[in-house]
Amino acid sequence: MDVLKNVITSFVPMSDEEYNLMLPIIERREVLKDTDLLQQGEICRHIYFIESGFFRMFYVDYKGNEINCRFAKPDDFLVDFASFITQRTAQYYCRAMEDSKVIALEYEQVENLYHSSPNWSKFGRLIAEYAYLIIIEREEMLHFQTPEERYKTILKKEPYLFQMVSQNQLSSYIGIKPESLSRLRKRMIGK
Amino acid sequence: MDVLKNVITSFVPMSDEEYNLMLPIIERREVLKDTDLLQQGEICRHIYFIESGFFRMFYVDYKGNEINCRFAKPDDFLVDFASFITQRTAQYYCRAMEDSKVIALEYEQVENLYHSSPNWSKFGRLIAEYAYLIIIEREEMLHFQTPEERYKTILKKEPYLFQMVSQNQLSSYIGIKPESLSRLRKRMIGK
Repeated sequence: MDVLKNVITSFVPMSDEEYNLMLPIIERREVLKDTDLLQQGEICRHIYFIESGFFRMFYVDYKGNEINCRFAKPDDFLVDFASFITQRTAQYYCRAMEDSKVIALEYEQVENLYHSSPNWSKFGRLIAEYAYLIIIEREEMLHFQTPEERYKTILKKEPYLFQMVSQNQLSSYIGIKPESLSRLRKRMIGK
Repeated sequence: MDVLKNVITSFVPMSDEEYNLMLPIIERREVLKDTDLLQQGEICRHIYFIESGFFRMFYVDYKGNEINCRFAKPDDFLVDFASFITQRTAQYYCRAMEDSKVIALEYEQVENLYHSSPNWSKFGRLIAEYAYLIIIEREEMLHFQTPEERYKTILKKEPYLFQMVSQNQLSSYIGIKPESLSRLRKRMIGK
């Protein structure tokens, strides 16, 4: 619990009393490896906060390719944010890559929480801005960086991915073909 | 002025008194055709609201290609949202495609406005969520739709683009090569 409190109050400092307004809406879930918290076509009814475990978020593009767009680890939030805020069907899958524990916060209860105090209202803005930054960060990596630069970026920002994720899974995240990642990796290690 | 008020109160209904808290921070600007409200490398210090005219937002990718990611018309907001909320350098250009008039709202004054009342705080959240939806909408079009489906999507949602924007400008927005758009267009018109 303290971890979630630390993360939330790092967005917006608030009193214990104000933070505690959230406690009644906390719902804990265990998610077994290879099961989905969310599937394409469902409505994303919760924001999840990962207490333990590891998830990948992916979509299937119009060519049928499975593309990983995010990996989420303990202390991260996980949500199809567009589906959550509009309560329309999700385009993404959120799949546990190992047995995991999450806190689930339900849409209407979160909306009510945002109206419960000025700091929770501010948190609603900052989490939306944060969701924006997360998505734009990967988009900009794909747009502005060469494959080699992307590899270095991931190595610097998310080094654990190289241990936790297969080369095949990683390649779509970095936006290159598996065989190119393999060549790139050999070249980088050789440097 | 009434137009901006209509747009803002369509996000969050509020009293005249509350809305008027914004009036002191409104700054009007005229932007001549082919000039930039924002360039890559600058910090995006303002959210703009377009009163008249037309803008394109684009970036230059790592291969040197100019990619249009958004077109903005009267009553639209225009901003490099990531640069605005972080006050870090922008990756995008916002260029007037005709003589235009905009309202500019400055970063710190907007932040203060968000703290001035519960409805302005809520507006801050909803505009961030809206910025998220705008960016994800184009991304999802590129990920999930075939070139032909994208063409139909734009024809339905932004039909004026086919009059206002050259085929060359439009093709990068739709995520296809100019020659493919030309072929696609002929095929669609022939149907």
